[in-house]
Amino acid sequence: MAKRCVGVILFDGFQLLDVFGPVDLLSALPDRYDVRFVGLDGDPVKSSPGISVSVTDRRDTAPEPDIVLVPGGLGTRSLVQDQPFLTWLAEYASRASLITSVCTGSALLAAAGLLDGYRATSNKRAFDWVTTQGENVDWVRQARWVEDRNRWTSSGVAAGMDMTAALIRHLDGPEAAEKVTTFLELEVQTDSTRDPFAR
Amino acid sequence: MAKRCVGVILFDGFQLLDVFGPVDLLSALPDRYDVRFVGLDGDPVKSSPGISVSVTDRRDTAPEPDIVLVPGGLGTRSLVQDQPFLTWLAEYASRASLITSVCTGSALLAAAGLLDGYRATSNKRAFDWVTTQGENVDWVRQARWVEDRNRWTSSGVAAGMDMTAALIRHLDGPEAAEKVTTFLELEVQTDSTRDPFAR
Repeated sequence: MAKRCVGVILFDGFQLLDVFGPVDLLSALPDRYDVRFVGLDGDPVKSSPGISVSVTDRRDTAPEPDIVLVPGGLGTRSLVQDQPFLTWLAEYASRASLITSVCTGSALLAAAGLLDGYRATSNKRAFDWVTTQGENVDWVRQARWVEDRNRWTSSGVAAGMDMTAALIRHLDGPEAAEKVTTFLELEVQTDSTRDPFAR
Repeated sequence: MAKRCVGVILFDGFQLLDVFGPVDLLSALPDRYDVRFVGLDGDPVKSSPGISVSVTDRRDTAPEPDIVLVPGGLGTRSLVQDQPFLTWLAEYASRASLITSVCTGSALLAAAGLLDGYRATSNKRAFDWVTTQGENVDWVRQARWVEDRNRWTSSGVAAGMDMTAALIRHLDGPEAAEKVTTFLELEVQTDSTRDPFAR
């Protein structure tokens, strides 16, 4: 089986755990997933707390993605206004068979029109803001993550790890998911509707 | 109250989640914690899956730490043989009031002599290897994390987040810990003795 190319979108002000939780899960199956870090240009990208990380690709030359993963973070607040970025994201993600987001990453998907007609969720503290980014989205407030056809969106930060474990279970089976979560000593939540952070 | 300086030790082959789980928790309290990333020299450091991250400090000029956090990862396998690194680590950590590790980071603490006479734990799959790094350590196989005076060591990867939440609870009180874990939508385990990954 060919490896799936996972395009993780990085931008200034991304939340570290939104990215590196899911990435550590996917990277534990190096024969199945080729994780790429796609920046806007080729420069290192600065996370919310300030530490910079390198990218593997720039958006205009990134390889064809099988899966797109869009993290959240404070940087989404300005990116939802960045039309060239949203246009690129819509085009890039449309080439993938799975489009996913963690936390406020769903605001970017929504602003790019990628969630129109889909059920989706997001960070619970930023929920009211996120939902303004997509009026034609069926926003689900109480959910750890939401799967609707090929759109998978998770709640805030740590929920991205539960969603990613579910994605691995979906794509590679329960044994692969078990292997990965045991490797990371991660107790995942497997019920997507259980959401202790929804009010 | 002055901020606590947290010196996170970065080295080639560190495990991403070992670092960025705890860091995202600490960074959610920017008035309490000043997280520094201390590399061996000033160059970017390459994680296990290959992505590089920048450091804020190099070991010979790093500021005085209040807390030292040593992550694990494949890179520990060679670092336990690196006597100049271990000598530096022992000296640097001895200036901190709290010495902590995640996953196989405890192998580095043990090899540096920093766990002699202490109870400690580590990653469960690497446990037998880790324990060879410190014969005078009271290794605890079944534990999510172990606190012994000012040495806090966690089990594998994701356990570092539970330990860090407990550390915040210990240092800043339950409200601060609750604020952080709610912000990250992270359901933490608060019982350090519960360890589903110990066999």
